[in-house]
Amino acid sequence: MIVPPDTVSLADYERHFASRIEPALRAYIAGAGADGITQRANREAFDRLRLMPRALRDLSRASAASQLLGEALKHPIIVAPMAYHRLVHPEGELATVEAASLTRTWMTVSTQASVPLEAIAERAGGPLWFQLYVRPRPEETLAMVRRAEAAGYRALVLTVDAPVNGIRNMEQRAGFRLPDGISAVNLAGMEPDGFVPARPGSPVFQGMLRRAPTWDGVRWLCAQTRLPVLLKGIMNPDDVDLAVEAGAAGIIVSNHGGRTLDTLPASIDVLPLVAERAAGRLPVLMDGGIRRGTDILKAIALGAAAVLVGQPVLHALAVGGAVCVAHMLTILQTEFEVAMALTGRANLAEIDRSVIFERPGA
Amino acid sequence: MIVPPDTVSLADYERHFASRIEPALRAYIAGAGADGITQRANREAFDRLRLMPRALRDLSRASAASQLLGEALKHPIIVAPMAYHRLVHPEGELATVEAASLTRTWMTVSTQASVPLEAIAERAGGPLWFQLYVRPRPEETLAMVRRAEAAGYRALVLTVDAPVNGIRNMEQRAGFRLPDGISAVNLAGMEPDGFVPARPGSPVFQGMLRRAPTWDGVRWLCAQTRLPVLLKGIMNPDDVDLAVEAGAAGIIVSNHGGRTLDTLPASIDVLPLVAERAAGRLPVLMDGGIRRGTDILKAIALGAAAVLVGQPVLHALAVGGAVCVAHMLTILQTEFEVAMALTGRANLAEIDRSVIFERPGA
Amino acid sequence: MIVPPDTVSLADYERHFASRIEPALRAYIAGAGADGITQRANREAFDRLRLMPRALRDLSRASAASQLLGEALKHPIIVAPMAYHRLVHPEGELATVEAASLTRTWMTVSTQASVPLEAIAERAGGPLWFQLYVRPRPEETLAMVRRAEAAGYRALVLTVDAPVNGIRNMEQRAGFRLPDGISAVNLAGMEPDGFVPARPGSPVFQGMLRRAPTWDGVRWLCAQTRLPVLLKGIMNPDDVDLAVEAGAAGIIVSNHGGRTLDTLPASIDVLPLVAERAAGRLPVLMDGGIRRGTDILKAIALGAAAVLVGQPVLHALAVGGAVCVAHMLTILQTEFEVAMALTGRANLAEIDRSVIFERPGA
Amino acid sequence: MIVPPDTVSLADYERHFASRIEPALRAYIAGAGADGITQRANREAFDRLRLMPRALRDLSRASAASQLLGEALKHPIIVAPMAYHRLVHPEGELATVEAASLTRTWMTVSTQASVPLEAIAERAGGPLWFQLYVRPRPEETLAMVRRAEAAGYRALVLTVDAPVNGIRNMEQRAGFRLPDGISAVNLAGMEPDGFVPARPGSPVFQGMLRRAPTWDGVRWLCAQTRLPVLLKGIMNPDDVDLAVEAGAAGIIVSNHGGRTLDTLPASIDVLPLVAERAAGRLPVLMDGGIRRGTDILKAIALGAAAVLVGQPVLHALAVGGAVCVAHMLTILQTEFEVAMALTGRANLAEIDRSVIFERPGA
Repeated sequence: MIVPPDTVSLADYERHFASRIEPALRAYIAGAGADGITQRANREAFDRLRLMPRALRDLSRASAASQLLGEALKHPIIVAPMAYHRLVHPEGELATVEAASLTRTWMTVSTQASVPLEAIAERAGGPLWFQLYVRPRPEETLAMVRRAEAAGYRALVLTVDAPVNGIRNMEQRAGFRLPDGISAVNLAGMEPDGFVPARPGSPVFQGMLRRAPTWDGVRWLCAQTRLPVLLKGIMNPDDVDLAVEAGAAGIIVSNHGGRTLDTLPASIDVLPLVAERAAGRLPVLMDGGIRRGTDILKAIALGAAAVLVGQPVLHALAVGGAVCVAHMLTILQTEFEVAMALTGRANLAEIDRSVIFERPGA
Repeated sequence: MIVPPDTVSLADYERHFASRIEPALRAYIAGAGADGITQRANREAFDRLRLMPRALRDLSRASAASQLLGEALKHPIIVAPMAYHRLVHPEGELATVEAASLTRTWMTVSTQASVPLEAIAERAGGPLWFQLYVRPRPEETLAMVRRAEAAGYRALVLTVDAPVNGIRNMEQRAGFRLPDGISAVNLAGMEPDGFVPARPGSPVFQGMLRRAPTWDGVRWLCAQTRLPVLLKGIMNPDDVDLAVEAGAAGIIVSNHGGRTLDTLPASIDVLPLVAERAAGRLPVLMDGGIRRGTDILKAIALGAAAVLVGQPVLHALAVGGAVCVAHMLTILQTEFEVAMALTGRANLAEIDRSVIFERPGA
Repeated sequence: MIVPPDTVSLADYERHFASRIEPALRAYIAGAGADGITQRANREAFDRLRLMPRALRDLSRASAASQLLGEALKHPIIVAPMAYHRLVHPEGELATVEAASLTRTWMTVSTQASVPLEAIAERAGGPLWFQLYVRPRPEETLAMVRRAEAAGYRALVLTVDAPVNGIRNMEQRAGFRLPDGISAVNLAGMEPDGFVPARPGSPVFQGMLRRAPTWDGVRWLCAQTRLPVLLKGIMNPDDVDLAVEAGAAGIIVSNHGGRTLDTLPASIDVLPLVAERAAGRLPVLMDGGIRRGTDILKAIALGAAAVLVGQPVLHALAVGGAVCVAHMLTILQTEFEVAMALTGRANLAEIDRSVIFERPGA
Repeated sequence: MIVPPDTVSLADYERHFASRIEPALRAYIAGAGADGITQRANREAFDRLRLMPRALRDLSRASAASQLLGEALKHPIIVAPMAYHRLVHPEGELATVEAASLTRTWMTVSTQASVPLEAIAERAGGPLWFQLYVRPRPEETLAMVRRAEAAGYRALVLTVDAPVNGIRNMEQRAGFRLPDGISAVNLAGMEPDGFVPARPGSPVFQGMLRRAPTWDGVRWLCAQTRLPVLLKGIMNPDDVDLAVEAGAAGIIVSNHGGRTLDTLPASIDVLPLVAERAAGRLPVLMDGGIRRGTDILKAIALGAAAVLVGQPVLHALAVGGAVCVAHMLTILQTEFEVAMALTGRANLAEIDRSVIFERPGA
């Protein structure tokens, strides 16, 4: 039996993952920044939000489907970009994409994937997005974009929240190192990233940040490709207008799962502010802490067009490859539909702010 | 000695219950939805409310009695509908109804009772209510209504908050199954409910919800019977007008004890909003987390005509049958009278909002 | 050595007390009502309050002295009325009054003292107050008043918050009973109190409350004696005018140490509301949770003329009789003076609301 | 290896410190006042504050440098005054000043330093400040000032929040005493301080406070020296005008690390109020709970010109002398630069209130 018998929620997958993976790798994947305050805040903010249901509504034509970037989306759940899936399973991203296809889930492939992006695309049965950073050398960035275009990726996801690495003390204490045979194969032969390792004594402000990405870089990238470009890591509503002006096709509200700067707010707490500012000019997605169908309902209610799910994918992949990832994604889809039914919402448009309950005086 | 010697509160019954019942059954009965946030919220909300007493008031004619649906109610405490009392005691609902009669407590019999509804009615010394769902086939619903009418039930309680089952992970992990010999005897021979099991892969939105109950179903039911119909599971004040229009005789604010959709608000937190909207047009009751006499006082103060008590009944029933249920109900009645005396309230009408203390600035 | 060497705070006395006293007696003395929410709230409310100091103020003539009921009070700390001091020390109230005298602390003697009230008065070196309830038979109440007057007591403290006993589950579970040889000697030969034991099945509303005290009883008592009468157990600002009209000489804001009705607010949270309503017409005192000199400062700042300290007296008495009670009271006096010095307050009049810090937006 | 291998944050140094130092000394250094509420509040307040980043900003000329009291400050991190560094390392303040010099960190030398102030100055590679109290005899205060001037100290830090010692129960329970050979060598031959030991029975208000420092003392000191005088321990905005009038050159918001009066607010919670009142007339610094680069960013955002770091210096000094102190300071500098980069702030002037996120309705 591939799925352990008592595995009925994403928390169960995390538990099984934690008991099977060795500590250093676990620290890398769990990997909160600094004291883990933001990582915990992502969950606490969802748990704090209360739902206000409607009773006895007509659910005979209920559906979780919608449109995103001009394509039909069966469920508003997308696999988030994560590096090195092969760390937890020998098939790595190939297993993940198989599970995504089985469950009709869109998937974002990381620029640090441990499998060639073309091989992933060949296995895909549905839309793929490709995540990248603005690299120090423009020609390298362009090369990545062209490969993604050629392989049929439908959108680019530009990560904008990591001009330097975060303070990853858990990972540092555990002494994690990439094992032999696993690497960012799509970056082979390229200059190392301009990221500054956030280790004591590093010259953070001594030169390397000169190449950190800016809004000019976004404009340049948008001009180079016909693919829609989504900006991942926007937290500030004041950055929304700049994103629109730069040509972005979408925004992903994200605090990098609490892995970069600690004490950033929970993603779900800033989502409504960003969505309000976007005012429909471009779709707003979010990631950070999604573990339950009710979390997805809350994100939709607060302005998200869809959500991205990260760590649970690696948890399930570690436990049992494609089968478990598909099972995990199905749990999440089912829970989301149950949440829609029990709040009396027959489609995504009905999931508006009125489903969020604010206790008077609280 | 049937009552264990250190049993002086409902929490003591829960403790004894937990130590005597095997884990899978315990998980079924405790059975919170998902992460148990709403179930805990039910308690936390009561514990957070503070009481503001009056001193030295005349209590010489104090009484906890009132009128409900045209009948005299000795105490505003009613047994909530719960399935399969025989799971915890061989006499099941027959023991419960005996205890209710002894303590002059009204009782709601579940449509999933493990004893024929007529047998329960025969043992009853006071008013009984009958809980039901709108079933897929109208003729089956009608058959249940006619049996309840014939057996002398005084009201119908229609549960409206469960068009699909909740995500009961605790129960799923524990692998609970109904033991042989215990079943919903009153539903024998009927088609299974239209409820969709919330298990991974279930086609929540694929067909079965077409038969989920709607306001039309409520109107239809109210037209079929002279019994008053109370709607159980209303949380949204915006559903109150619809309930009145549909012909409901009362509303029971309920989050199903935290067993359906997790992260619903505490019942006591929405009660005042629902009661305000009802504005006396129909009585508002509530359930969810009642464990102390002070909880009842708070519910009355915030607009409830009476409260329903669920799990504590099964706890006491498991510990010692009718004797312990009667003892438990007496504890609750006594605590409620003590709370009235110590806040200086001589009758239910005096238990208004002024007994709730709101810390300035909190 | 009578004082254990690491005993430098009231919490240390409580720790030593807990390790020396047998569980049933400890449960009686710690004795919170129901779930202990109010008892914990008393402490949490003090701990939550923040102080805003002034720097570099002239403290050369600093003093903690004041006037209360026309007499000079060296420190605003008074021993609260508590039953049966002999439960924890053979000398009982005689040891307590010795310690009070040594530290120039006023003391309130309980109507349930375990030593004759006259004997206590003989040992006293400073003012004593006498606490009583309005008894079922007026002539008995009067007899007590006359004895207190004759013995030189300076004021009467009428407890008004206990028309019935609270739900003392801790005490009930521990099965506490008064040991032989300890009793309310001052009530010998009188009819038992009209209090209703809050045990399951008790007929709370069946007769006995007819004799519960009312405002008429207060008026009657004030008319019978020249001693000032303070009302202990007032929590509601709306009861202040009634107290003034009835002839009360002072009010003691109290939730009975969390021993009567659970989920009453912390005393310190209602104190400012009561003090505002009193508006100087009569002094307002408070008890409930005082364990630190900063607690006293906060109570004075929020309107108290003085504070009463209860359980810590029994803790210290149990640990080492009069010596430890005197030591405990000295700790409290010292801590209060340190708190005055470190907030820059040279006398009680300077301890106003400005010493309480309210975090903006909190 | 001097730096233990898993030491990547200030918390790691605290952990190693706690495991190496004997309990009484640990209690002295950790040494919270009373119940430690303010000490914990210092941390909790930082952890509660949320950051709002800007994305994709130009960081090519980023710098953490600024000007303070007319001198160039490389990083806004200053070593706080702490007594007796030799308690944890044989070289004491000489090792600390070496680490400060290596990392271009300014240092404040305590009047209770365990090494002659001149010897510390000789080893210094950067600016030093000298901390002192107004002593009972003016001539002694003057003597200290003259020695500090002669040794090249750049500023005086007058501690104003300790007219009496705090209630240090942890230290008292642990029975800490200064070991032989360690003393306040710079005070040799002088009369003991006017501080009143806060031990039970101490005559807090009986005479010694006559010599406690007042605003007159500050005026007098400012008139005696050309060195700028900073007042350390100001918490109340109402004291800011008095500080300006008295001639102070700067204010250090401080609750003495939670070591004096317990239940004072967190320093970071009053900093913005003090900074607003200062309105640029004099620089405002702060200490209390700084453990992360994000803490420094928050302090700057709320009005601090720089922050002082205390206990972490002793932790690192205990673990490995100058090397570890330098390592610890480098961690803090690096974390601060990372926090600037990840919030998109290129210099201290850009770290304004907009970097603090206030959740709407929270």
